[in-house]
Amino acid sequence: MTNGMQDGAALKAAEQPTPERFFNALNAHQQTEAMKTAVELDVFTAIAEGNSSPATIARRCKAAERGVRILCDFLTIHGFLTKENGQYGLAPDAAAFLNRHSPAYLAGASEFMLTGRVRRGHELLTEAVRRGGTALGRGTLEPENPDWVEFARAMMPLMSYPAEVMATELRKGGEARKVLDIAAGHGMFGIAVAKQNPSAQVYAADWGNVLEVAEENGRTAGIAERHHLIPGDAFETEFGGGYDLVLITNFLHHFDIPTCTEFLRKVHAALVPGGRAAIVDLVPNADRISPPTAAAFSLMMLATTPTGDAFTLAEFEQIASDAGFARTEMTPAIVGLDRMIVAYHD
Amino acid sequence: MTNGMQDGAALKAAEQPTPERFFNALNAHQQTEAMKTAVELDVFTAIAEGNSSPATIARRCKAAERGVRILCDFLTIHGFLTKENGQYGLAPDAAAFLNRHSPAYLAGASEFMLTGRVRRGHELLTEAVRRGGTALGRGTLEPENPDWVEFARAMMPLMSYPAEVMATELRKGGEARKVLDIAAGHGMFGIAVAKQNPSAQVYAADWGNVLEVAEENGRTAGIAERHHLIPGDAFETEFGGGYDLVLITNFLHHFDIPTCTEFLRKVHAALVPGGRAAIVDLVPNADRISPPTAAAFSLMMLATTPTGDAFTLAEFEQIASDAGFARTEMTPAIVGLDRMIVAYHD
Repeated sequence: MTNGMQDGAALKAAEQPTPERFFNALNAHQQTEAMKTAVELDVFTAIAEGNSSPATIARRCKAAERGVRILCDFLTIHGFLTKENGQYGLAPDAAAFLNRHSPAYLAGASEFMLTGRVRRGHELLTEAVRRGGTALGRGTLEPENPDWVEFARAMMPLMSYPAEVMATELRKGGEARKVLDIAAGHGMFGIAVAKQNPSAQVYAADWGNVLEVAEENGRTAGIAERHHLIPGDAFETEFGGGYDLVLITNFLHHFDIPTCTEFLRKVHAALVPGGRAAIVDLVPNADRISPPTAAAFSLMMLATTPTGDAFTLAEFEQIASDAGFARTEMTPAIVGLDRMIVAYHD
Repeated sequence: MTNGMQDGAALKAAEQPTPERFFNALNAHQQTEAMKTAVELDVFTAIAEGNSSPATIARRCKAAERGVRILCDFLTIHGFLTKENGQYGLAPDAAAFLNRHSPAYLAGASEFMLTGRVRRGHELLTEAVRRGGTALGRGTLEPENPDWVEFARAMMPLMSYPAEVMATELRKGGEARKVLDIAAGHGMFGIAVAKQNPSAQVYAADWGNVLEVAEENGRTAGIAERHHLIPGDAFETEFGGGYDLVLITNFLHHFDIPTCTEFLRKVHAALVPGGRAAIVDLVPNADRISPPTAAAFSLMMLATTPTGDAFTLAEFEQIASDAGFARTEMTPAIVGLDRMIVAYHD
């Protein structure tokens, strides 16, 4: 994110150790706050509307010109804006995702990603490392945690393309007729499958408060009559049986391996012979340090859940195998930041 | 800092916009917390002592193996550790600056850089951008702010080399006899000048509580009898006169241009004909977006001071000229993250 190493002036010689990287890490919270502030003041939208000087942006955002100038310079340094002759423009990422007039606007995700619970969990990271799990009790796994409603709403615009990628990949393996969508959230994964499998009945499982979002999205997508809701704790709710496809999207990383194994046993039992479970998740490589976004996600789970983690392919294979699945396969599909692993019932 | 763009798997195609940079910015606070935690648990020292597996590091740091593994992977992703076959090592920066047994250890700076005041100022960044200055009243400029004592102690190991660079550069312009060291802090700048100018008497000005650190360092350096203290507010204290060199290190960025101009007038009046003022500070280029560390420093001043900023060379020239200095010159010296500008009395 920062370009500290390009700051040649700060180094005696390029190959010498420099404390700059350390200072940049300590100051990294500035990036969080600057982005949060820019979204709150709607700076990106202001610029998209043609305001390009500190003075005009400040007028549109009801802020001080000096404050806007410093904020916009910071956002330029970090690649979200361009600056030429003192005039700011949107960098491509910001134009696509941070301008309220863009169909892919997702800046609302900042509210989900920076809830008090997430921030507090990280402020208590030292305690989490000591314990080996969040210092916040059940953390984000609180029943009916309202943050997940926020999440479902915020992530929806981001998810429709990846959901389509997932559904297309799964469709290659045959048509689905009865689909269980675990931790459905916004419901977009199940909805994409419903759209590509015209006879499929989709059962969306999640906390009751979250399912309101999925239900709304199902109606908008015109699949309401094939979209059914199973509210409650995924570990306790009765799913019923006869499914030929179960979607497990961004769910397993909240738990430890024994819990995931137990859960996949329940999924296995709900599947018909020939059925498939599609695990969509962040999957770090075996080295656990690449690719960076997937690998770094473990820290989020450490800070905010009792035992969650980002699992490697080998771990997912072990979990599925121990749960009774005959074989697993990593698909080539790139589902947003996730990969998709298909576990075959038999 | 993060390598999000290298995460090819996350992109549909390299040239397409990706929300990953946005998510990385929102999550950047994780880098702050991870570094703070690593310093608190002394993870780098543990590794320097030969502990390389999560289990042995955990034992040394009195933490959970799982927590240590996830933290160390995160630190590896961000370039502070190396990892091979599940064993961690120190990257060069960490070996030099974050291992308690290293003479250049400066991890204590994390306490200064993350004081409650600094954190709170950034949490209130939206309000600071609205106002055009910190939402915290006088911010870090509170009289006798104890954070500066912390700062003076934490930065000392980092500053002895840059101070030497500065003193060497200034020595080229002639020997100094009476030196005023403004906002002396750890005192290292004045002490370095004293060492290179054997007849120089150095007057260190700062808040009384901070000067205790400078005094201690002067004693250690063996220049105590040539080191004099001027405690109090730099704007109100009487400096006396007859100085041929005034050091103004990392001070002016806390104020606005009129205040800096007024202050330099006071400095000009304290100088003898032929005297020099050496301004050592972060100096962004005229574009205000490069080099990144100097340019980004403006945000720190916005969040934590009423009117502070990082000034460009042109601004420093204007300030010095308006204050009565005959001419200014940017020296080639690289003083840590700072540059040095010399203003000539006449």
